Amino acid sequence: MFGKMFKNVYEKSPIVHCITNYVTVNDVANIILASGGASPIMADDIVEVSDIVSICNSLVINIGTLNTRTIESMIEAGKTSNKLGHPIILDPVGVGASKLRMETTLRLLQEVKFSVIRGNASEIKSIVNQNKTTSGVDVSLEDIIDEDNVDKYIDVAKFLSKANNAVVAITGPIDIVTNGEKNLSYKKWT
Amino acid sequence: MFGKMFKNVYEKSPIVHCITNYVTVNDVANIILASGGASPIMADDIVEVSDIVSICNSLVINIGTLNTRTIESMIEAGKTSNKLGHPIILDPVGVGASKLRMETTLRLLQEVKFSVIRGNASEIKSIVNQNKTTSGVDVSLEDIIDEDNVDKYIDVAKFLSKANNAVVAITGPIDIVTNGEKNLSYKKWT
Amino acid sequence: MFGKMFKNVYEKSPIVHCITNYVTVNDVANIILASGGASPIMADDIVEVSDIVSICNSLVINIGTLNTRTIESMIEAGKTSNKLGHPIILDPVGVGASKLRMETTLRLLQEVKFSVIRGNASEIKSIVNQNKTTSGVDVSLEDIIDEDNVDKYIDVAKFLSKANNAVVAITGPIDIVTNGEKNLSYKKWT
Repeated sequence: MFGKMFKNVYEKSPIVHCITNYVTVNDVANIILASGGASPIMADDIVEVSDIVSICNSLVINIGTLNTRTIESMIEAGKTSNKLGHPIILDPVGVGASKLRMETTLRLLQEVKFSVIRGNASEIKSIVNQNKTTSGVDVSLEDIIDEDNVDKYIDVAKFLSKANNAVVAITGPIDIVTNGEKNLSYKKWT
Repeated sequence: MFGKMFKNVYEKSPIVHCITNYVTVNDVANIILASGGASPIMADDIVEVSDIVSICNSLVINIGTLNTRTIESMIEAGKTSNKLGHPIILDPVGVGASKLRMETTLRLLQEVKFSVIRGNASEIKSIVNQNKTTSGVDVSLEDIIDEDNVDKYIDVAKFLSKANNAVVAITGPIDIVTNGEKNLSYKKWT
Repeated sequence: MFGKMFKNVYEKSPIVHCITNYVTVNDVANIILASGGASPIMADDIVEVSDIVSICNSLVINIGTLNTRTIESMIEAGKTSNKLGHPIILDPVGVGASKLRMETTLRLLQEVKFSVIRGNASEIKSIVNQNKTTSGVDVSLEDIIDEDNVDKYIDVAKFLSKANNAVVAITGPIDIVTNGEKNLSYKKWT
């Protein structure tokens, strides 16, 4: 499966527009480059995001160090990407940690059509329940997925997937991926 | 001593709110994660800092890439942390390099109660003397601590410690730590 | 040649003021430190850039994550550096990717005297032709320099060099450096 994906990336050489946090941004750029053929561009000023979208093939929105200056850039880049049919990934980092992150995430989900929503179990649960968490950007202890609770989180992921017509991925000791109908879960370690 | 500290971190699993520079922020996050049990969150928008403080256990303020947008966020996060009794660390990077850094540092020290102030010898001396340095973010050659001048810098550290009722740490070839009464100095290399 | 350069850096211990992007900023700082004797300082707030320039010896301007807040800081830092006779490097990352990047680059070249302009082949060509590219921050496939087209890119580099009275460097599989009169090209791999 990964072979096919990497071949696809290699053949299409996509440019990936990232509006992301300043903590992991260097890793994000290097991982995109390392995937073989893809090229990242980071651009978050409202004045240029539509120009940037127009030369890109996809968009990543990550709210890890959200600030009011770039929220409007995320919305505009998202809308322009939707018009051009580009896939968009949302990474709602620490969405339950503040009103700003929750409100921005809900607004993004309302105004932009995402292809993929990826988060840890606390983040995905927090969006579905629209409630505050106490765990910051890492998963809460009570939300760590194991074989006993995995079915509950598959249901949470499916709910968010259907509500937004998007693939939802929960990453953790057990990964969950769903398109609302079919689900995969994969245990990485024991 | 370190064993006890790491055990403490492991047992309390603190979330550390960092308002820091965009140069070393990735290292800061990874070092907090590597300390075993702690979790970093970077958040610098005035709209969300109080929310973030409320789910955290401590705060780090670092002025390495200071900008006017985040100064008010630092003050508000500091005041909210003080109300909740969270320990706060100040890292006055390059404080003597500009009026903005000096004035912000003095304002922070006036409006926020810090638990720890950490800097290199030039930075700590610069705060005490409230004067400009010519050394940027690295220590000046004339301020490199050795066995001949260490007592002078211990006095500087004690002065700042007493003035702010905070632990002061000067890091360099010889590290100095003082609470204003007791001092430790430790030579790392020769 | 490199021996002489490193000796020069070691003896002068320059402080390098960088107004740069938040993607590679940590690498930039570490490479300056690793060059042996130099010290980086990142500062992009309009309120402090002139103070920072006054204690530095050189300036790097990189538009990799350009935003409207820091454009004026770039202009002011550039003008102050020119007054003090500091060498300035321009790295016009992705200049052809948006109107904002192109207009800012042209304004910088008009208002600030640069010592060195460094880019990939698409970026340098894009400035000379003042046209949009479709390649983001990486070089376009059609602009990858080889032995057949190297003379064309030497001409492009010379043109930009003469127009701005600056050394121009194009980096890629074959590097080109010119001061408008003399050119060097160096093939790194085959």
